[in-house]
Amino acid sequence: MAGDDHIATLRSLLGEGGLLTAPSDMAAYETGARYDRGRAAFVARPASTPEVSAVVAHCVRNGIRLIPQSGNTGLVSGSTPDGSGLQGVLSLDRLCRVFEPDPINRSVRAGAGLRLSELNARLEPSGLFFPIDLGADPRIGGMVATNTGGSRFLRYGDVRRNTLGLTVVLADAHGTVLELGAGLRKNNTGVDFRQIFIGTSGAFGVVTECVLNVEPVPRQSATAILVPVSADGVPALLLAIETALGHDLSAFELMSGAAIRAALDHVPSLRNPFAGGEIPSYAILLEVARANAPRSGEQPLDAVLEEVLGEIWQADAAMLADALIGPPRETWALRHALSEGVRASGRLIAFDLAFRRSDVMAFLTTMRRELPERFAGVTICDFGHVGDGGVHFNLVVAPDDPRLEDGVFENSLRAWVCDVAVQRFGGSFSGEHAIGRKNQAFYDRYTPREIRRLAAGLKNALAPGAIGAVRF
Amino acid sequence: MAGDDHIATLRSLLGEGGLLTAPSDMAAYETGARYDRGRAAFVARPASTPEVSAVVAHCVRNGIRLIPQSGNTGLVSGSTPDGSGLQGVLSLDRLCRVFEPDPINRSVRAGAGLRLSELNARLEPSGLFFPIDLGADPRIGGMVATNTGGSRFLRYGDVRRNTLGLTVVLADAHGTVLELGAGLRKNNTGVDFRQIFIGTSGAFGVVTECVLNVEPVPRQSATAILVPVSADGVPALLLAIETALGHDLSAFELMSGAAIRAALDHVPSLRNPFAGGEIPSYAILLEVARANAPRSGEQPLDAVLEEVLGEIWQADAAMLADALIGPPRETWALRHALSEGVRASGRLIAFDLAFRRSDVMAFLTTMRRELPERFAGVTICDFGHVGDGGVHFNLVVAPDDPRLEDGVFENSLRAWVCDVAVQRFGGSFSGEHAIGRKNQAFYDRYTPREIRRLAAGLKNALAPGAIGAVRF
Repeated sequence: MAGDDHIATLRSLLGEGGLLTAPSDMAAYETGARYDRGRAAFVARPASTPEVSAVVAHCVRNGIRLIPQSGNTGLVSGSTPDGSGLQGVLSLDRLCRVFEPDPINRSVRAGAGLRLSELNARLEPSGLFFPIDLGADPRIGGMVATNTGGSRFLRYGDVRRNTLGLTVVLADAHGTVLELGAGLRKNNTGVDFRQIFIGTSGAFGVVTECVLNVEPVPRQSATAILVPVSADGVPALLLAIETALGHDLSAFELMSGAAIRAALDHVPSLRNPFAGGEIPSYAILLEVARANAPRSGEQPLDAVLEEVLGEIWQADAAMLADALIGPPRETWALRHALSEGVRASGRLIAFDLAFRRSDVMAFLTTMRRELPERFAGVTICDFGHVGDGGVHFNLVVAPDDPRLEDGVFENSLRAWVCDVAVQRFGGSFSGEHAIGRKNQAFYDRYTPREIRRLAAGLKNALAPGAIGAVRF
Repeated sequence: MAGDDHIATLRSLLGEGGLLTAPSDMAAYETGARYDRGRAAFVARPASTPEVSAVVAHCVRNGIRLIPQSGNTGLVSGSTPDGSGLQGVLSLDRLCRVFEPDPINRSVRAGAGLRLSELNARLEPSGLFFPIDLGADPRIGGMVATNTGGSRFLRYGDVRRNTLGLTVVLADAHGTVLELGAGLRKNNTGVDFRQIFIGTSGAFGVVTECVLNVEPVPRQSATAILVPVSADGVPALLLAIETALGHDLSAFELMSGAAIRAALDHVPSLRNPFAGGEIPSYAILLEVARANAPRSGEQPLDAVLEEVLGEIWQADAAMLADALIGPPRETWALRHALSEGVRASGRLIAFDLAFRRSDVMAFLTTMRRELPERFAGVTICDFGHVGDGGVHFNLVVAPDDPRLEDGVFENSLRAWVCDVAVQRFGGSFSGEHAIGRKNQAFYDRYTPREIRRLAAGLKNALAPGAIGAVRF
């Protein structure tokens, strides 16, 4: 427990503004983006890597569990303290001074506390951006800790692929500072320790600075909404489009009719793009984009898209029922409204699943067949990144459903969906949200015993200090 | 030491053809691709993951160091036994039965013993390929163990980026088999143990199967040889080309005049592409490629390339001295002849360095200025993957140079070059060849003490058995 002595020590390490202990100051750090309401012993806000190191060393030596908190936009209770009042929050929000772009290396060194939007705003004059496209606006350190993917994964990959270097403070009694990678793209000189910190929810330490790959901002793009003839035909449609468009394809996002309906209901200014307003059971947002400006005499990308879709439609009438080319801003507005629309339509029980691309639609079809037989009164409002196998599998229940009063119904629903996803389809129970208290039980249930043993051994060997919300 | 008892046990585990002990049978496994000539206690050739597990368990329990050997094409003495006669070779060459393509997932599960060329030949009917482009023809397991990059890294990345799943046998007393990743593209459910086996030269165990990302075979490509005005101008030229060509850029390979001259001398059938036959101090092989076939009315890629290069030439006369668009086969033939040409031109002292892209040319310029002052009679015949910071920094000395008689000259030359690369420029002493006996001393010298301590702790916690040629 963090008594007065610890508070005094931490305050002396961090100076004025570096340590919060008043309940009103701590409230925002104790509350999660969507769920959670915990209680912190203190909130440490170090402003430099040496300060992070000092806080970590002190807390590890004294057995105080630290919860690193970045943008606090996560959905798995990974960045807030539990209700005990014994855990300290280590916020990255003051680690935002470092910003060193290297346009020739196509990289930037950035403080882990910079928000994604700030990073991109600062990169804009150089025509570059960090190509992880998310609905939320996290800070970079948390993006590393959760290895976020997002809507343009199939073009740019995840955070792991785009991390060229990390400065981290190891959760050991010394708060050991490691400089890893240093911005090199090729470097095979032993264990790549960056990888231990990416996607492990802060369980090994605190990321304080990152060297990130950045990409040229696309200078042309075009979008369409596709209506597939059937769910089963979606994989073939994806392949046909990849064959025709190659690396120009930058998003292939599945949207269920139920999710679209929820978005249109919730955001009345959105235009219903479908012929006669009739919402199909599934639609796909397709985006093509190029980093280079159009050359004179070159077809504009929306004309290319129209031609390609026409060819696909002619070649196989069983694949594509309709294709609606529309302006990117309007098309993405619909996609981005899905999450909020679904949340507004009832009590949301959300899953962040991922599959081999070859299994996504089979899983969804299975769910539509089997879920109603087992759990009546549950609406499937799924959407996701079908081009990389990710599915935001959302279930909505009427808010006044009496089954919600205790946790039994929700827990059995969650357990059944995850069992089918992981055990029957070989999928993942956390595609891009990583692990926190909320899905710790799924980690314990689905991770093979040997892997859990190795993870615990790794944690013990490298970073034995109590840190983060997840226990490996 | 592997006495008769061990031989008998291993023979019973592996059956007929599974264990070689006759010197004539073992010779090929004891000899490296370019260097090395060791002596093996035996060569084990398991044909399945359970057989690998049994061999590893037996050897770990009995303290017999195993050297995993894949295609044996490496250049750092990572896959051959030392001269003691006490080490056993574990060859992957019979682990080549598994080949399970999944076109919708754009992946293939393949035995670690398949050669890259075999893998691509078997993928060809589906229009897919494993996009790591190398001069050598390794087996896949070794590509994972060294995290190879190659000539199209800037488009497709390295093996790490393209590894979706691994089956590995851990170097512990049980020969524990781990199934990792399972072909998912998104999966953030704890420590990603695949990453421990990628690029670590077999030090943690043996890769037996891989699930690899595959890509559509390009259906259009065009190449040009560029002559930059100066070495200093190469980074700006790279950026200009990336801006103009975006994701169509698939290779940007630097070739020094000395390396080109060596290739032309050695392979007389190669055409000298330069105006008046005059070889510049540097040239660049530029390739653009698209997965999709050209659409009707679309400019062919070589016309696009010509237009773009014309624009760059007009915009900044200080960047590009000449640009020679030629057929891909002929252009790549020159690039691929560099390595052999350089080797034929004298005694080769080769380095596989990597830098931030912003430092590559500065390093090379520094070397041209400082190296002759310190080491007379040494020709710099460098080439490399400048688009990703990789440099095959080759030095050639006359074969009868008396300084070659003992190792003093070569060792001091190697030490100086690596010191400048790593300590002055923050580069890597092994960009894509990983670590073996040959560069173990550089690992020991340049890896920070803390990282060496952590690597040793990791090794001890996860896979304590003696395996591989490198010691972390």
